[in-house]
Amino acid sequence: MIVRRIATFALACTLLAPLSVAATQQSMGHSHDVYPFLGVDWGGNTFVGAAMPFGMVKVGPDMQSFDGVPSNFGYMSGGAIVGFSHLHLSGAAGKYGNILVMPTTGELSLTKTQSPRSDEENHPGYYAATLTRYNVRAELTATRRVAMHRYTFLSDSPAHLTVDIEHCLTKGTGWESQRFLGGEVHVVSPNEVTGFGRYTGGWNRGGEYRVYFDMVLNTRADSVRTWSGAQLSEAASASAGNDGQLGASFDLHPRARQIVKAKVGISFISIDQAKNNIAEEAPLWDFEGLRRKVTESWDKQLAAIELRGATAEQKTKVYTALYHTMLMPSDRTEENPDWPTSYPDHPYYDDYYAIWDTFRSSAPLLTLIAPDRERDLIRSLIDIYKHTGYMPDARSGNDNGRTQGGSNANVMVADAYVKSLGGIDYETAFQAMLKDASVPPADKQKEGRGGILDYNAKGFVTLADERSGSRTVEYAYDDFAIAEVACGLHHESDAETFAKRANNWSNLWDKDLTREGFKGFLRPRNPDGTFADPYFVVRGTWPDFFYEGDLWTYSFYAPQDMRKVIELAGGDKTFVTRLDYIFRRQHFDVSNEPGFLMPVMYNWALRPDKTAEVVTQLLEKWFTSGRAGIPGNDDSGAMSSWFLFNSIGFYPNSGQPVYLIGTPSYPDVTISVGKTRTLHIVARNLDEQHINRYVQSVTLNGQPVEKNWLTHEQVANGGTLIFTMGSAPSAWGTQDPPPSPSYTSSDSCKDGEIR
Amino acid sequence: MIVRRIATFALACTLLAPLSVAATQQSMGHSHDVYPFLGVDWGGNTFVGAAMPFGMVKVGPDMQSFDGVPSNFGYMSGGAIVGFSHLHLSGAAGKYGNILVMPTTGELSLTKTQSPRSDEENHPGYYAATLTRYNVRAELTATRRVAMHRYTFLSDSPAHLTVDIEHCLTKGTGWESQRFLGGEVHVVSPNEVTGFGRYTGGWNRGGEYRVYFDMVLNTRADSVRTWSGAQLSEAASASAGNDGQLGASFDLHPRARQIVKAKVGISFISIDQAKNNIAEEAPLWDFEGLRRKVTESWDKQLAAIELRGATAEQKTKVYTALYHTMLMPSDRTEENPDWPTSYPDHPYYDDYYAIWDTFRSSAPLLTLIAPDRERDLIRSLIDIYKHTGYMPDARSGNDNGRTQGGSNANVMVADAYVKSLGGIDYETAFQAMLKDASVPPADKQKEGRGGILDYNAKGFVTLADERSGSRTVEYAYDDFAIAEVACGLHHESDAETFAKRANNWSNLWDKDLTREGFKGFLRPRNPDGTFADPYFVVRGTWPDFFYEGDLWTYSFYAPQDMRKVIELAGGDKTFVTRLDYIFRRQHFDVSNEPGFLMPVMYNWALRPDKTAEVVTQLLEKWFTSGRAGIPGNDDSGAMSSWFLFNSIGFYPNSGQPVYLIGTPSYPDVTISVGKTRTLHIVARNLDEQHINRYVQSVTLNGQPVEKNWLTHEQVANGGTLIFTMGSAPSAWGTQDPPPSPSYTSSDSCKDGEIR
Repeated sequence: MIVRRIATFALACTLLAPLSVAATQQSMGHSHDVYPFLGVDWGGNTFVGAAMPFGMVKVGPDMQSFDGVPSNFGYMSGGAIVGFSHLHLSGAAGKYGNILVMPTTGELSLTKTQSPRSDEENHPGYYAATLTRYNVRAELTATRRVAMHRYTFLSDSPAHLTVDIEHCLTKGTGWESQRFLGGEVHVVSPNEVTGFGRYTGGWNRGGEYRVYFDMVLNTRADSVRTWSGAQLSEAASASAGNDGQLGASFDLHPRARQIVKAKVGISFISIDQAKNNIAEEAPLWDFEGLRRKVTESWDKQLAAIELRGATAEQKTKVYTALYHTMLMPSDRTEENPDWPTSYPDHPYYDDYYAIWDTFRSSAPLLTLIAPDRERDLIRSLIDIYKHTGYMPDARSGNDNGRTQGGSNANVMVADAYVKSLGGIDYETAFQAMLKDASVPPADKQKEGRGGILDYNAKGFVTLADERSGSRTVEYAYDDFAIAEVACGLHHESDAETFAKRANNWSNLWDKDLTREGFKGFLRPRNPDGTFADPYFVVRGTWPDFFYEGDLWTYSFYAPQDMRKVIELAGGDKTFVTRLDYIFRRQHFDVSNEPGFLMPVMYNWALRPDKTAEVVTQLLEKWFTSGRAGIPGNDDSGAMSSWFLFNSIGFYPNSGQPVYLIGTPSYPDVTISVGKTRTLHIVARNLDEQHINRYVQSVTLNGQPVEKNWLTHEQVANGGTLIFTMGSAPSAWGTQDPPPSPSYTSSDSCKDGEIR
Repeated sequence: MIVRRIATFALACTLLAPLSVAATQQSMGHSHDVYPFLGVDWGGNTFVGAAMPFGMVKVGPDMQSFDGVPSNFGYMSGGAIVGFSHLHLSGAAGKYGNILVMPTTGELSLTKTQSPRSDEENHPGYYAATLTRYNVRAELTATRRVAMHRYTFLSDSPAHLTVDIEHCLTKGTGWESQRFLGGEVHVVSPNEVTGFGRYTGGWNRGGEYRVYFDMVLNTRADSVRTWSGAQLSEAASASAGNDGQLGASFDLHPRARQIVKAKVGISFISIDQAKNNIAEEAPLWDFEGLRRKVTESWDKQLAAIELRGATAEQKTKVYTALYHTMLMPSDRTEENPDWPTSYPDHPYYDDYYAIWDTFRSSAPLLTLIAPDRERDLIRSLIDIYKHTGYMPDARSGNDNGRTQGGSNANVMVADAYVKSLGGIDYETAFQAMLKDASVPPADKQKEGRGGILDYNAKGFVTLADERSGSRTVEYAYDDFAIAEVACGLHHESDAETFAKRANNWSNLWDKDLTREGFKGFLRPRNPDGTFADPYFVVRGTWPDFFYEGDLWTYSFYAPQDMRKVIELAGGDKTFVTRLDYIFRRQHFDVSNEPGFLMPVMYNWALRPDKTAEVVTQLLEKWFTSGRAGIPGNDDSGAMSSWFLFNSIGFYPNSGQPVYLIGTPSYPDVTISVGKTRTLHIVARNLDEQHINRYVQSVTLNGQPVEKNWLTHEQVANGGTLIFTMGSAPSAWGTQDPPPSPSYTSSDSCKDGEIR
């Protein structure tokens, strides 16, 4: 835990900037507990900068190494700042980084403007650093669509505030790289420049996106120049085409300690709308006021979880994780260039990045603690379906793409549906789900289900399509999700069809395939239905059979029917032995999403003690409070939401109204469940070393909970959930396994009820 | 950091035992900052229990999982205690666990006596836990050769204090497993039992070791029974042969809260000596007095490093690391059954486990902060050579074995020699080194150098021997070490011979071997001298070519001649690119010793900024303050000593009087250097997030240090070393690379001087 370090870190003979003091004064809420740098190193790729919860504008530093290698997500612990751009991801890389503002002093240069920084500070909605090369203190805050920059020029010098339109992250020619396609810049007055840039690439299928901006200073520049190509000019307007340089410079001569503020309105619609966004959201020059407002917004969101008796380190981890789950998708309501969007009925979110990552635990988390947000995310998906033909599996820059595994918006919708999340047009969502499940997409990388014709005809995707293994098992679970909604909406025939298809995952099971002493694994099938020949590579799998996961992980992927999985694997005992082996021999990849459910799978074999053991070790080893505190890409907070659930004590089986009990990490935590209710979770006998990791008994509102799982109803009705913990496994939770709904009702829709 | 958590963890509705209060009262020194559980999970295998610094007796819990799988090093976070045994390793596994004492209540059972535990506490020299199955509070403390147990029977019940002689860790039939060979047990009186066990196996070549004990209670038992096989008996003596059960039980009926204390004297010589050890070291029943004494011993050792202005977490990490480097080897002076040993001239240490691990940074650390200890370790090695014919590469249980890479006691001696460590018979040590380098050992796994005839004749070990790659490069560095000592002792001819052999590592360099875009790697040679055919496996290397390291690591292993390495790799720039690639693509294994020097190798290419970058990331990611805080086996503290040096700011090139400057983590630290001097290290402008990781300038006692390395003389003379840090690389350290002594003087002994 870093922020709290300041108390003892202070030292007579070194000069430390009072980084945290401002933060303490700024927020009395949980913004104060957030350490945004958690995860920036070691591949977490978490956003550093200032943004509103789910804010469209995410303004923050873009950096490069001292060797000149740029960061592909913006930040870099050991690097220099090249400027502050206005759109970023969190937990992923490769996109955005548009409209780069940079203060410099001395001679204006259009290249090599990067500066080391010191005294860096970041809190929700506020970022600051001193650019040591230029002796400028830079501060940033944001509204949803506007950034305010506050630059304090610490010495008297000619200075320049530049805006670079060509800049974006991960520039290159690869199809996942971004390219600048051109743009315009216009000097409106000595304190205003507008323009736009056109970009393409990143994690979609390459549709162009345009970013419009209006940049206004609180002081008149001595001159404003523009550049197109490498040439500075007095021209009031400039434009560029493919990969040309393009930008403008406000030339100033601030006196020492002079503050220059800039507002940068961003829009995906037009320059005018960018101006309007400033007028609406940041009419004044009140930096502190804006900062207060964004901090309050975060404090309000972060109040969804209240810890009592927790350590400072635990608070840092929890509130930072919560913060990280609320940076994306981006609320772009009224900012969709392709169709009208508006509050409250037609909100528009972009940067579903990707639902393949977030459907597992992020979506269930929001459904629980921020149901209106989850409702809006799904409303937005339905609108995207209406206008583009598909609910995306991933989307950014106003374009769908690219698919990873299944069409997991299906599960996201079903998860909301079975949890009775209101305000959603489930009938239309259902039509979108049917389309995923039946209409082959023109571009299999963009949306829909690649290989769907094979899958529907044969019951599995064949080697004629890539990722046939992960696609098959994910489609089967997506079909289960469709069956659930069909059932609830009384589409009995569809319900029956899709409930049957939910078993398709087992069509790839080869009971004789043996690896490292274990028998029964998924195995690819050729287009003619025969099993593919054995193929031995590093992890004992086939190339392109699975997406970002191995044979061990995907062979157990059937959240709708873990009972069948256990049967196929040889029964409870062999299944447990195999899970033990998977965790011990590192066949489990904590840094990626396909295995998210694996640690709690022991519950189906009635060994919740093993779940407790594995979850304890994973949390202890991989989720720490420092910059390397997330084991892999945070993926819009997917990894953070996995941490949150598991540390609170139960983990959702997304798409089903079920939570698997693991082991709580906190003695006392209250979480919002629904708009008005709370669930107070107490863990008795918890010790600070988490030796007492084994649940001995559970009560909910005074009544015993004998099962090792909870229904959504139990959780969402709120009240008090008490775990009594002990240092050894107990008999608790060893009688009734969690549901395996496909196993028990695969061929009929019972009374139209949600299973 | 765990201990300090207690302050905020306390909670109204949960009952937390006041674990830390006793500790606070107990020690005002740095024992209080040690968290012995750091590293128990995730393969660190650190010792949990009570021991003196380098103590022979290491008494602690032996545990097993709730499924009955025993821990192979003693402890297990999620498990049950089977008893408290008296000999352990730290940072390794597979050996000891002898003379197991366990309190139980109720009916006596010779099987299934394990108990879950709660309220576990461990501080240097003190361990406590409540055995919840029996409702007994167990406490342990230790002198060098005696353990005192204090059991509080919390309820009134028939009880038994058993001593199990058959028990030992990692029992099995594999040649690294242990086996019980037999033993005896004798009831001396209602409060005394003696006996011994014979064991074999673990990390040596299988010589039998005997552990004698005398166990005395402070109360008379109602009866004392013995068992041999599965049968309890009233017989006063019992014995067992191979793998028979053997033990004794003190049968008691304590009243509620009655305390029963036991002293267990241990000896490797005889039962009488075990008794004498009690008489000498623990004549009274003063548990608290013994605890105070062992705590004071630790406080004294731990005072070698003084941090100012550090965070609680930093303190935990530093003092725990220091603690972990001082648990092994074990001081067994007067306890060698094979030849007489005594203070001060003939100390005897066992559990060099292994020098292959510890020569790199543990030995240089002790030379600096505890020179008398390092002197004694080397004296002991020389005596072992005199009596067994070889200085071991590893030794335990009074037997040499097994070798891993080279004969690295050579480097350990040379490191002491070039640092002018006094009180060592270097002439005899030199004879031992010559023997390593010339006489083929009867058992290549036990001691000496396997493949030495090939190596000396051809200049490399061939594929006729296993590990021919790692052996060749390690022998070359060992030969460099021999040359150093030869030179200093004026054995000019030997100096010349071995200085030449120090270049042998490059005989395996294949300039055309290409991997992943880089050219030039080590490649095995057949007995006829031709390069072996390419062999492609996972890491692009050959089977059995290297020991616990890959092609990337060992190809750069020439600490005596990094300049030549860089030349062969294609020059500074390519070398730096290749190192970058190695760290980025995980060809560097932070969890094992062969790569210990790699992070600082950038210094030879005049890129200390890269060293700073890599060290920062490695420390941040892999060295945390919790139970999973060490990335791999701590190996007698080798890993901990790597952490200590790198976090303080410089890292030794063991065997040479040189330290490579990296990046300091602490604003102000004073370390002992030699017996009376201290080095005060100040890092100016350090920020708590370690963004200012780049050295801008260095002064030593007011004089600028321009080089990116320090001599031992500079360090050992003490004074004040000031680093000025910044957030960007500087010109500092980019002019003079660290020495490459073999490069500059490979063929002569210049003036008999130590290079």
